[in-house]
Amino acid sequence: MTIRLYDLAGAEEDRRFSPFCWRIKMALAHKGLAVDEVPWRFTQKDAIGFTEQPRVPVIIDTANGDKTVWDSWNIALYLDQAYPQNPLFTENSGQAATYFFKAWAERTLHPGVAKQVLLDVYNHLHDMDRDYFRTTREKVFGMSLEEVVATADETLPAFQASLAPMRATLEQYAFLGGDTPSFADHVAFGPFAWARAVSEKTLLSGDDAVHAWRERMLDQYDGFARRAPGYAV
Amino acid sequence: MTIRLYDLAGAEEDRRFSPFCWRIKMALAHKGLAVDEVPWRFTQKDAIGFTEQPRVPVIIDTANGDKTVWDSWNIALYLDQAYPQNPLFTENSGQAATYFFKAWAERTLHPGVAKQVLLDVYNHLHDMDRDYFRTTREKVFGMSLEEVVATADETLPAFQASLAPMRATLEQYAFLGGDTPSFADHVAFGPFAWARAVSEKTLLSGDDAVHAWRERMLDQYDGFARRAPGYAV
Repeated sequence: MTIRLYDLAGAEEDRRFSPFCWRIKMALAHKGLAVDEVPWRFTQKDAIGFTEQPRVPVIIDTANGDKTVWDSWNIALYLDQAYPQNPLFTENSGQAATYFFKAWAERTLHPGVAKQVLLDVYNHLHDMDRDYFRTTREKVFGMSLEEVVATADETLPAFQASLAPMRATLEQYAFLGGDTPSFADHVAFGPFAWARAVSEKTLLSGDDAVHAWRERMLDQYDGFARRAPGYAV
Repeated sequence: MTIRLYDLAGAEEDRRFSPFCWRIKMALAHKGLAVDEVPWRFTQKDAIGFTEQPRVPVIIDTANGDKTVWDSWNIALYLDQAYPQNPLFTENSGQAATYFFKAWAERTLHPGVAKQVLLDVYNHLHDMDRDYFRTTREKVFGMSLEEVVATADETLPAFQASLAPMRATLEQYAFLGGDTPSFADHVAFGPFAWARAVSEKTLLSGDDAVHAWRERMLDQYDGFARRAPGYAV
């Protein structure tokens, strides 16, 4: 009674390289589950034909009525549900994974939004702050505030494309935290709240999952963020 | 008894835009904690001089002995520890945040590693798979396998730079899952195991936190991955 795993092999049967299969082999090792690895080559589509799709990893759980699962994400969710020991998704993983999200956001969302609205920020500053802001930000960007936003329209598609991993997540989950917001949502919302407070610029198209999520965040907590001074977005 | 928050303000006192402050205002709303917002401008460094650093958000928790915390990440950790209701980091957030990590990895790590080792993969394939692999991958990349890797040396620094959010996380945590590996680690390890199985190419410098993490992953589960056929990396 064990888990059978179809695993991509090279010319040598024991040389295994698929990054998607490696995810699952590591996850099985993490849980201490016995595995029967079946070497498989790309062109052996017939051998996994019972899944009616062409890719490995595929598992057959012989300890659970030959339950068959494919797609590495679905396999991971299945393993945590069927074998709760040594969870793959833990509360602790939420904190570190959120730290990763924060690190990504500060390198992607923050500069991406800045290139759209930095001059609008300047225009909304108190007089006492304007020289300070211009001097420090122009040093960071290595150009004038006007130059930073001069290419905003041309770089908007690249900004929207950079949201791809966030968009993919929000096509699967209502929030970055899953069913409810977590600190990852608060982190992601920050730069959008920043833009909304100072700029009329349209950053997201209406059919974007990120747009729908931003609407949910504006409505969250009895409309807390929506009540703040800002522009229609 | 409430939490005092120093919050960046514009010319109008109620126009608040700092993305870092917005994180914390949303987190406080999430927890249902009362907040006393103190408008602050960039140049009012003296007003937060008691923190001996120049940035907001800063909170003073008047319900907890005027506990003072700054840096938005530290504030989030403090709030979850001091006020456990409506957690900012939940088990559920681990799953969705890991999905985000997966979406990022498949758009960054996988193509980045492919540009280094795709021809090595081809050279390790079983004869029966070579034509299939060349045809399908050359269609995806829009060029020959040889052309994909022709610029590998020149693009290696960009690949290493693209690891920045992962590196930042691994400078704070032993694993992407925190103290122990989670499925995010298995996902991230996949492309490195892929490269190791087929290529002698050095992808990471020895002083990189990602290198140290990869060593830990190779040692994990009684050296499960290190025992697999592969090259010294």
